[in-house]
Amino acid sequence: MPTYKAPLREYRFLLRDTFNIEQYSALPGFKDAPLDVVDQILDEAAKLAEDVLQPLNQIGDREGCKLENGVVTTPKGFKEAYKTLVEGGWPALVADPAYGGQGLPNALGVIFNEMVSSANMAFGMYPGLSHGAYSALLHHGTDEQRKTYLPKLVSGEWTGTMNLTEPQCGTDLGLLRTKAVPQADGSYKITGTKIFISAGEHDLAENILHLVLARVEGAPAGIKGISLFLVPKFLVKEDGTLGARNGVSCGALEHKMGIHGNATAVLNYDEATGWLVGEREKGMRAMFTMMNEARLGVGLQGLSQSEVAYQNALAYAKDRLQGRSLTGAKEPAKPADPIIVHPDVRRMLLDAKSFNEGARALLVWTALHGDLSHASGDAQVRETGDDMMALLTPVVKGYLTDRGFANAVESQQVYGGHGYIEENGVSQFVRDARIAMIYEGANGIQALDLVGRKLAANGGRGVFAFFKLIDDFIAANKDDKLAPFTAPLAAARKDLEAATTWFMENALQNPDNAGAGSVDYLHLFGITSVAYMWALMAKAALAKLSTGDDKAFYETKLKTARYFVERILPETATHLLRIRNGAAPLMAFSQDDF
Amino acid sequence: MPTYKAPLREYRFLLRDTFNIEQYSALPGFKDAPLDVVDQILDEAAKLAEDVLQPLNQIGDREGCKLENGVVTTPKGFKEAYKTLVEGGWPALVADPAYGGQGLPNALGVIFNEMVSSANMAFGMYPGLSHGAYSALLHHGTDEQRKTYLPKLVSGEWTGTMNLTEPQCGTDLGLLRTKAVPQADGSYKITGTKIFISAGEHDLAENILHLVLARVEGAPAGIKGISLFLVPKFLVKEDGTLGARNGVSCGALEHKMGIHGNATAVLNYDEATGWLVGEREKGMRAMFTMMNEARLGVGLQGLSQSEVAYQNALAYAKDRLQGRSLTGAKEPAKPADPIIVHPDVRRMLLDAKSFNEGARALLVWTALHGDLSHASGDAQVRETGDDMMALLTPVVKGYLTDRGFANAVESQQVYGGHGYIEENGVSQFVRDARIAMIYEGANGIQALDLVGRKLAANGGRGVFAFFKLIDDFIAANKDDKLAPFTAPLAAARKDLEAATTWFMENALQNPDNAGAGSVDYLHLFGITSVAYMWALMAKAALAKLSTGDDKAFYETKLKTARYFVERILPETATHLLRIRNGAAPLMAFSQDDF
Repeated sequence: MPTYKAPLREYRFLLRDTFNIEQYSALPGFKDAPLDVVDQILDEAAKLAEDVLQPLNQIGDREGCKLENGVVTTPKGFKEAYKTLVEGGWPALVADPAYGGQGLPNALGVIFNEMVSSANMAFGMYPGLSHGAYSALLHHGTDEQRKTYLPKLVSGEWTGTMNLTEPQCGTDLGLLRTKAVPQADGSYKITGTKIFISAGEHDLAENILHLVLARVEGAPAGIKGISLFLVPKFLVKEDGTLGARNGVSCGALEHKMGIHGNATAVLNYDEATGWLVGEREKGMRAMFTMMNEARLGVGLQGLSQSEVAYQNALAYAKDRLQGRSLTGAKEPAKPADPIIVHPDVRRMLLDAKSFNEGARALLVWTALHGDLSHASGDAQVRETGDDMMALLTPVVKGYLTDRGFANAVESQQVYGGHGYIEENGVSQFVRDARIAMIYEGANGIQALDLVGRKLAANGGRGVFAFFKLIDDFIAANKDDKLAPFTAPLAAARKDLEAATTWFMENALQNPDNAGAGSVDYLHLFGITSVAYMWALMAKAALAKLSTGDDKAFYETKLKTARYFVERILPETATHLLRIRNGAAPLMAFSQDDF
Repeated sequence: MPTYKAPLREYRFLLRDTFNIEQYSALPGFKDAPLDVVDQILDEAAKLAEDVLQPLNQIGDREGCKLENGVVTTPKGFKEAYKTLVEGGWPALVADPAYGGQGLPNALGVIFNEMVSSANMAFGMYPGLSHGAYSALLHHGTDEQRKTYLPKLVSGEWTGTMNLTEPQCGTDLGLLRTKAVPQADGSYKITGTKIFISAGEHDLAENILHLVLARVEGAPAGIKGISLFLVPKFLVKEDGTLGARNGVSCGALEHKMGIHGNATAVLNYDEATGWLVGEREKGMRAMFTMMNEARLGVGLQGLSQSEVAYQNALAYAKDRLQGRSLTGAKEPAKPADPIIVHPDVRRMLLDAKSFNEGARALLVWTALHGDLSHASGDAQVRETGDDMMALLTPVVKGYLTDRGFANAVESQQVYGGHGYIEENGVSQFVRDARIAMIYEGANGIQALDLVGRKLAANGGRGVFAFFKLIDDFIAANKDDKLAPFTAPLAAARKDLEAATTWFMENALQNPDNAGAGSVDYLHLFGITSVAYMWALMAKAALAKLSTGDDKAFYETKLKTARYFVERILPETATHLLRIRNGAAPLMAFSQDDF
């Protein structure tokens, strides 16, 4: 049976020692969460994740969701767990106090979400999707919409969904056909079919707010004709109570490779009543508010499965006796050594461990920049925050989910044949992690967003600011003890800059040169960013080591940093070589050549 | 619905143009299969795979095997398909004519098996395991055992299994507890529990021959006390007909991530009657005969899933309309371009295509060397054949299954969200492919076999012979047109030699230095071997191009070779860097540090 322990010590190290969030204690949001309060919140969140959500994870996988007569039943225990979540006030954690939220920084929000997702990824998607709907309404809804719907989303009494995909229309939303017909009262009648709607129908909450992309009758074809609508499952009466059932129904649930506990619905809209959110034909703008938020949330899913898979593989590797160390028996009294003595088993574990800790730092760092982009009183800090959030979002989504999945696979490998048996639970981590590489923009799309949009934004301001952050850190930390981490970071940063320059010189004349190297570039960016995080963490660990407390923790931190530098950073060389080989090796093929 | 077409054109290119197997037409085995006969055999095999086995693949996944009252039922249609296989004489393809076999080269056998496995991997394991049992009996059984059992295995009337694993004993067979008690009549009573027994119990054949590792009462502990036994499900009477049911029963079937159509059994031996195969306490030797054969067979499973996943992803990529080419609409009359116009989609497809064709060449090349190690009249050719077979077996097993799985995952990615839906079938390729990295010696064990055993064997004779083959080829082919393939091959070979030298210099003093770099080395070896195959194929393609026939096929071959060279070969740099960083980054951790 798999288990999960929230990595509370790691969170404290990041928030206190590495990012020193107390420096922001005067800012809105941060001032409501001094470190002792943060500790309490994280302790309580860990209990929720470990005691309530994790025990339901395998049950969710085995039972899945059921659709009978239009009614979707979630797996046993999910309803009670959701009630516990709502009663704990967790959906309000980072929401606006004006609507009942606690207004805490999203740097805390992503930490909470990592715990929930490690414990039960399929469950975590129900409140996760609500938060995307919350953001869209907060930023684009009318005052009345906000007043009517946000408190219910913030409390978790109602949940939300994002409705983009249709059978003929995935990445290319310009192809969508769902139509909206204006009514005399200002509402619209929405008709069409949406597929792959996560948390699309369920029994956890009394109402579901569907945010639906559709085309108003007569609007232009393509992406420019799209508007965003709010379509509640139950219409809401003037007094805020629930009225009639709206014309939206669940036509089917998908049979998926994983996340069985989450209902992935086909939703049929048949003249359902909806209201415009934001401006007509500006639906994409409003949708991107939801999606950008969701992308960090998906990135952390990759990390979350890597973390929980690692924890279980580690326990197995310490427990499983098989063979002897290559350098002589380590536990001669036992019939064999635990397999953790073998270098190759350590490789698989440390690939995950060094990623988990570095990727978590990157996630929190990115969310923190997002927080600062709103909360800081300094315009330069706000701009950098915004730039880093925009630049790193596709990196966090793509790199964390690609590597998170790969680490879950390696953790499964640690188990040998036992990893292939469903009862042992690690196969579920692999199957669940797989979706994170696909949804909210497949990772190839993230890579195109990075090279096609984010690099060029504001004349490259973001990427140059990122390089400068690294350069400034290296220049300010000429400490010999840090050199084993800053020197390789400088080398990786150089590879990343070389790749960036190559795109600038070669992609304008032929955009396929950007497309061909985009996923390599995303990984090169991810590796370099995580190496930067490891340099920051190494510095923090060295500082703490000099004070003498909890030595083992900080020494291990340095060992893990070293592992990342010596075993993961060498990948940059391959990525750069591939990028520089350009589009020709791919585009030389006619369609018939394949 | 997924489909499969056997790559017959590819097989012909390999056998005729690349390896010119007609040069061996005087040798035993080869002389029974002139090229026109080979063509007929492959055409018939393709029909079996495409028309009989592939349509059952998804059914097998969905239904799985069922155990009721000790009786295992295979999925609907498997029994009839197995009958068709037997009636076609396929189990006899490469078996010894002395026992009813057709005696054809294993170079053909692996091609047949690739087709079967691409069409239905779970099904292919039933005859696949039989062949392992056949080999063990052929090489280690008594005359009487051979006479009694081999004709039935060769005809396929009976099937076979390999029984190694026990709950406490996987890789480390020295821990096994199943015991054998000698009886007065020369037989043994076998008692114990075996797990993870593929094809361990089923309804396809009237008898199952279990080859079981056990320890004779009083034998030494550890690996040296192990003997191999034959334990038939039904005892065989003197006249060859079936007698009493033996004391072996199926206690449970495992619930697995994939290969649901194959019955993975827990087998309980309760004083079952068995007979020694080979010498007492030399069971490991006999077992290795089965396992080495099985390892090539598992390597091809990795290739097989990469091939069928690629075929389906390719069809999807040509069919799915979404977005526009970065360089302007390619099919402006359609609402969007097919996604194959996008460089990153091509990357995923070409990673698989360039691997499939190169890995297939390596598989056939390795099997051919195995054939020559028996069939050649030239002692030097036999020795090289033996050396190459031994050296490349762990490479084929490890590299082909690691990359095969990775390619199945990339093919799934081409499908976007539709790849995560079970009905579309590509998830099954991923789930099925996953086991091949684990069983028959997890890939980490293959890597240790390579660096710990195969490199050192006969003073490094094998690896130096391999380098010499490459050097001789490069020296003999100074053609400018080949330079784009031979120059990078020379560079990769240099990296591989550098890594080999590094092990020789650093692993004796500290074997963990070999363990830490072993999987990187296996991949470095795999990439270099496949680059060698691409150089051979490029040469063959250039020769055929000059004759003017079927130009498009050969030109595509060169494009695919170029893709491998420019996009996959750059990985050698990373592997070498990691290997040279040695064991320290891994071994610095105490067990508590993790």
